[in-house]
Parts: sequence; structure tokens; C-alpha cells
Amino acid sequence: MSEGGRPVEMIKAVLSEEHIPKAWYNIQADLPVPLAPALHPGTKQPVGPHDLAPLFPTEIILQEVSTERYVDIPREVRDIYRLWRPTPLHRARRLELALGTPAHIYYKYEGVSPAGSHKPNTAIAQAFYNKQAGVRRLTTETGAGQWGSALALACRFFDLQCTVYMVRVSYEQKPYRRVMMETWGAEVLPSPSPRTAAGRAVLERDPHSLGSLGIAISEAAEDAATHDDTKYSLGSVLNHVLMHQTVIGLEAKTQMEMFGEYPDVVVGCCGGGSNLAGLSFPFLADRFKGKRLRVVAVEPTACPSLTRGKYLYDFGDEAETSPLLKMHTLGHRFIPAGIHAGGLRYHGDAPLVCLLHAHGYIEAAAYPQVPVFAAAVEFARAEGILPAPESAHAIKKVLDEALEAKEAGDARVILFNLSGHGHFDLAAYQDYLSGKLRDYAYPEKEVEKATAELAPLQP
Amino acid sequence: MSEGGRPVEMIKAVLSEEHIPKAWYNIQADLPVPLAPALHPGTKQPVGPHDLAPLFPTEIILQEVSTERYVDIPREVRDIYRLWRPTPLHRARRLELALGTPAHIYYKYEGVSPAGSHKPNTAIAQAFYNKQAGVRRLTTETGAGQWGSALALACRFFDLQCTVYMVRVSYEQKPYRRVMMETWGAEVLPSPSPRTAAGRAVLERDPHSLGSLGIAISEAAEDAATHDDTKYSLGSVLNHVLMHQTVIGLEAKTQMEMFGEYPDVVVGCCGGGSNLAGLSFPFLADRFKGKRLRVVAVEPTACPSLTRGKYLYDFGDEAETSPLLKMHTLGHRFIPAGIHAGGLRYHGDAPLVCLLHAHGYIEAAAYPQVPVFAAAVEFARAEGILPAPESAHAIKKVLDEALEAKEAGDARVILFNLSGHGHFDLAAYQDYLSGKLRDYAYPEKEVEKATAELAPLQP
Repeated sequence: MSEGGRPVEMIKAVLSEEHIPKAWYNIQADLPVPLAPALHPGTKQPVGPHDLAPLFPTEIILQEVSTERYVDIPREVRDIYRLWRPTPLHRARRLELALGTPAHIYYKYEGVSPAGSHKPNTAIAQAFYNKQAGVRRLTTETGAGQWGSALALACRFFDLQCTVYMVRVSYEQKPYRRVMMETWGAEVLPSPSPRTAAGRAVLERDPHSLGSLGIAISEAAEDAATHDDTKYSLGSVLNHVLMHQTVIGLEAKTQMEMFGEYPDVVVGCCGGGSNLAGLSFPFLADRFKGKRLRVVAVEPTACPSLTRGKYLYDFGDEAETSPLLKMHTLGHRFIPAGIHAGGLRYHGDAPLVCLLHAHGYIEAAAYPQVPVFAAAVEFARAEGILPAPESAHAIKKVLDEALEAKEAGDARVILFNLSGHGHFDLAAYQDYLSGKLRDYAYPEKEVEKATAELAPLQP
Repeated sequence: MSEGGRPVEMIKAVLSEEHIPKAWYNIQADLPVPLAPALHPGTKQPVGPHDLAPLFPTEIILQEVSTERYVDIPREVRDIYRLWRPTPLHRARRLELALGTPAHIYYKYEGVSPAGSHKPNTAIAQAFYNKQAGVRRLTTETGAGQWGSALALACRFFDLQCTVYMVRVSYEQKPYRRVMMETWGAEVLPSPSPRTAAGRAVLERDPHSLGSLGIAISEAAEDAATHDDTKYSLGSVLNHVLMHQTVIGLEAKTQMEMFGEYPDVVVGCCGGGSNLAGLSFPFLADRFKGKRLRVVAVEPTACPSLTRGKYLYDFGDEAETSPLLKMHTLGHRFIPAGIHAGGLRYHGDAPLVCLLHAHGYIEAAAYPQVPVFAAAVEFARAEGILPAPESAHAIKKVLDEALEAKEAGDARVILFNLSGHGHFDLAAYQDYLSGKLRDYAYPEKEVEKATAELAPLQP
């Protein structure tokens, strides 16, 4: 392309509907070492399908352990994906110029989904398989509401009822994502609620409990396990969730080809690991075949599971209702500081991400939130889009990489996942801009205590 | 396209960067009757360039009166447009199925811009021409902040300072769009402010004034007129603003061709008229040449300027600082009820839209806000996207057209402008969902009083 003699670089690779991937990439087919199985906390034996059946439909359970390299995306799921997919991949040319870096910076933008993040990629798939299995209602938990809103949207599309247990303090203080869920027809309950035995037990001890994600998980799982027509849905951590997110990376590979480039480094923020995995796993498939490539997971200093956690078996939830998962963990009783990136306040990480980190395929970095917000504002001023605080962690790392490239005079190609927009996080931006945002030191002692409790859980 | 034997209809037409229009369409070249000029309120003579020079740069003033059919879009403006343009055009297949209508419903989605609406289409152009003219700072007014945030974004891209006078009650009660503007580097002042003589006069009379758009306009215009390096920017109503928005309709024409369809009816909400004009004017160009086409402007019952106003000369602003414009008006002293669609609370309409309405080229309809929100929720549940309350007015009309088509068994093609998303309007959705939203009757007596005052203004 050129215009008036001046060469015009493409800055945005858009694809039409027919380029939506027809299959997800399942990294379990290519792992360099086998994945440690999830264990039953009582027997310490690998959990079987019958253990998971009260919570998940058969197809999801099969996907969780599948080693098929590609799993077909059902036509009904692609039919919904195309409401916003393929998502655009941008070259951040204005950011490069602002930084004066020779690096080429690209981002895949998942904030264009109706829920504003990558979360619907798996929510839609899960809702479909549940509908197919005759399930009538899905339950889940949510903190600030990003995952809950994705599942509410998905349930609406497949005419499923949706019950979201929302941590009470968020339910009361951050009503907007709740309203979004209700607009899509979900029932949203403040957790702890009188609806479940788990909730009633907490309310008996403390009628004014603000709730926690751990309590909300217990309520959602109990609700599903005690109703025949109801199953439970999880938004990250598990293998099938990460696989559903690979549509991001599969599209990105096609789009990077349109730019005639291949990333030297792929960056994603990491809470449970689903957005990082979604973008990076299809590229890691090339690395397994010998391609040079770095993948970097970025987490908050306040909750640094990959950079500081122990690689051990632990519960996936604070309330000890899940199977044991082998992962980098800060201990399931560890409660991270109240940073604004609520989606990164998870004590562990997806077992697949942890395995690849443990074997050197995924690097990790951690940042405090003040420099993360500074990076978010720098990005917003250059590229326009206001990033979610979670995604801003990836941006901080990208800026560091780009400045390193500038010093080294190296034109490295950086690709990151802009996993969501920050339209519901402006209170956090306000705190940052007014100088009220604070950082939290790495909570060394709390982590030591929480991880010390894990010894008896090991097989 | 087909998949597994089943024909797959395209539901989303996406274009790549090179399809961003290279020129805006200027409807002034094709008007069936001449446009009544803006008048000086003292002399009642047409205003000349020298009257406008304190507020606008020369290029904008020339565009305001140009009768060239196409005006080139500067390369620097297209360079910014491509951050989010071309915007997608969707077929609302799921909505059609939900309604059981034979109508084909299409929408152009402008909510993908970083500011979340169509407003940056003109903000970027205005910032560019001001930068080119050596201007260092732009001022404007904003209510809830949609226009202010678009101009803040545009000024950031062209390294201009930006001062936004924000109606005080919104500044205090709706801080999020203010934070968005500040993130992009704008200075946002609650209006009335002590910064201007106009603001000080109001504060002297009432130190606790909540402000109004009229006061904010006076402050922004005074600030620009009294500083050599500063100009003023307006987000709707004027001819050049409507012309900048025609990128919407020009793209939509190409996209409708991709679907192999041409609209029978084009629908847009109408406050000042810029999003309606942006989508419909390039189609009206065909109608001037004999093509069959209906265009419908949709407004709130609480502020029904096209459906109930008088076609007279009136001030563009409550504070009587603007030239006189010939338009359908409820009187510049009319204060509409506090409906949630703040962008539609304007006493008049763009002179170009009014002229075309007066001569039968544009129909108008008005709806109360409760059925408008019902339509918004129906749309969100079918298509996923949460519409802005303004855009929801267009949706209500589209639903009525689609149901009429169902009764008549006619497969009419409907195209509407989904001019923005509702991420900053969830309090309004909450009011609707909880049954607290109320409707307002047409304020007949107030309008009679406000329009009676217009007689002495006529030439």
C-alpha cells in the first residue's frame, strides 16, 4: 500500500468470519513431559470422570484429559464467536514511536467481545456442551464480575438459566457488572447467600460477612452438585478452559503472517492463566518443533504465584472443595492484597502453564500496580484504548522489553494479549491519576505460612 | 460459504484499512433546496468568516459553507481513523429470529472507537485542522462526557491541550467519563467554574449551582475567544461536523454491497443529528438521484424537536451566545426532563437534518424511555452488545419496523446506526430492570412558552 508517494504501513489485521478457527489447539498432544493428574484429596489417586460428573458434562470431562491435537469447534459455537470474532490484531505503531524503540509491538485485542474480555471464548463453549447434555442451569462464582458476565452472556445465547454467586462486597460496591449480568438475564446472588448450606454456615457465624471467592465457589459448586438439571462452570485454570482460549493464538498466527512477521516474544498477564495460554499455546506448538520463541507470564507482585510460589499439589479453591492440582501456588489460604487487577488475585495457576514454566518454556515476571497503571496510561495515550488493569500487567512488561530493545538496538517482535478493556475499572484509574494508588510488598511471611500447610496434601 | 452442507450466512462485514473512505460526502452539494444561512443575532444578516474566526480555524469555517460534493480526508486523519475504522457492519440475524420477522436487520457499530461512540470521527478531524492552523489548545463543553471524551482523545493524538467544561452535576455524580478524559490528558473543570467571567457570574448568584450545558458552552466559548492560541470545538449540529460523520455511511454502503443488499429504511437516533446524518447522508445522495429509500430520525418524547418543534430561527445554545440557526426547535430556553439519553436532550437539531425533514426526505418518530430500554434489553439479549441509551431509541424504531414487516409479510431491509455502547450507562439499565425508570409526557405548555419567545428572533 502507498498513498501520495508515502508508504503506508498496515496497523490492523482484520479477518472475516470464515477465518475463525475450525478447531481448538490442545497442547496436551505436544507436551514435552506428561501433565501431573488432578488428585482426589482423600485417596490421593487421580480423579476419574465419575468424580467430576456432578459438576461437568461428559464432553467437558473428556476434553479435560484429551490428548487429541485438535478438537473441532462445534458449528453452534462458531456461530456465536462470529458476533465479535475474529478479533483485530493491531500493530502499536504510535506506541513504538512514543517509546522511540526499534521493536515491533503487536497486540491482539479481545476487549471487543460484548462482555469486554476474552472470557466468552470458553463461556460460549461450556454453555454449548452443557445445553447439548440436557443441562438447564449453570452456576458459577464471580468476584468483580468479568467471568460472571461472560457466562451470563453465554447462557443467554443457549437459553440456559444462569446463577452467579457474586462476592458480597463487589455485589454492593461494584454494581455495574452485576447489572450487565442481569441485563443478559442471569440471577446474581450476593455470596454468602442463604441459598446454600455453605452460605448459611458462613452467615450464621457472621451475618455481615463480605464474602470471598472461596465461599462463592463453594456455594456455586454445592448448588450444581445438589440439583440434577444444574452444572458448574469455571472460567480459568482447567485444561479445557485454556484449550477453548486458543482461538486467540490461532487467529493471531494468521494475522502475524499478514504482517509478514513472527513474534520473538509473546506476553500475557497471568491470573489463572487462560488468556496467556490462549495467545501463546499455538505459538509454543512451533517452539516444540524447534522455533525460537520466548513466552512471558506477567503477574502482580502482590500475588506472585509463578515467580515466588511453590510447585506443589494444592486445592484450586480456598474452601478445599476442588481436587488437588499440581501448580505454582502461594497456598490456598493465602489472601492477596486488594489490588485493582481482581482477575490476577489467584493463589495458583493453571497446571498446564505451571508445567511449562517449570520446564523453562514460559518465563515469568512480576510488577507492583503503580508502574502497571503508569504503563496503562502510557498505552492509552498512544493507542487510545483503555486497558483492563489485568492486561496492563502485560503492557508493563512489553514497555520494558521495548526499552531493552532500544538500548540493544534490536528490532525484536513483541506480541501481547490485550485481554480486556478497562471501562469498568475507571475508579482504579482515578486512584492512580490522583496519586492515591499504593503498592504492596511481596507478602513473604504470609506465603511461607500458607505454603507450609501444603505438606500433608502431597501424594 | 457453506459448512457441512448447511449454507452459512455472513453476519458481519469487515473491511480492511484501505477501505476507509478517502473523502467525506458533503450533502450541501446535492440539497434539493438551499440551506438557510446562520444569522448574526444583532444584524439578522448571514454570519461571515470573520464572525466565526475567534472560535474556529479557517479550514473548518470553509467546510461549514462548502458546496464541494467530496472533501478529501487528510492522510493524518485517516491515520488515526484506522486505529478502529472501518467499523463492522452486522446483520442482526439472532434478533430477526427472536422477532420472527422476515425483515433483514443490519447495524453499523460505532461503539468500537476508544471513546465508545461515533463522536471521534469529527473530533479527530477538528483537532487536526486546529493543529494545522497553529492552535495550541481546544475548549469544549460536555454533559455526561461522551463528546468531551472524544475530543480529549483527539487532542491527545495531535498533541493539543484540551480543556473540557463539564456540567458540575455530572462532574460530581458521573466521575468515570471524567477519569477517561483525564487519562487521555485533558483538563476537566466543573462548570460553572471561576475560570471564566460567565462562570464567575453564575457562581456569584449561586455558589452551589449544578451547572447546565448552556453555561458550559458559554464558558468554553469565552475561554476560546479570549485566548489567542485557543479555539472552540463542537460535537454536533454544524454542517462540518455532520460531514465528518459521513465516513459511517460511506463504509456502510460498501458493506451493504458485500451483503448484496440495499436498505429500504435507514434509522438513527437524533439529538443534534450527527450520527443520523453520518449514516444516512451517503444513502440520501442516491435518493436525490431517484432511489427509493426512507430515512427515520428517532428522538425522545421528552425532547421531541423534529416531531413537535417549530421550524424557526433560534439560538443553538441556552445562553444565547451562538448565531441563529434555522431548525426544528423547542426553544433554547426549554429544559428537557432528565432522561438517561443525555445526548438526545437538545432543544434543536442540525439545520441540515431539519431542512431535509421539512422537505420530506427524513421522517421522525419519538418514543418514551421505558419502551426504549425494553428494546435495548431485547437487543442485548439477542445480539450481546449493550447499546447506549441514545442508540436504543433507534433500536425501538427498528423493532417496530420489523414487527410491521412481519404483519405485512414483507422482507424489508432495515439499517440502523448503533452509535455507541452503554458501558457507562449501567445505572440507567439498573433503573429499568428494577422498575424504577419513569416516562415523561410531552411537555406541551413548556414548549409553547419557550417557542413563543422566538418571534423577535426571526428575520
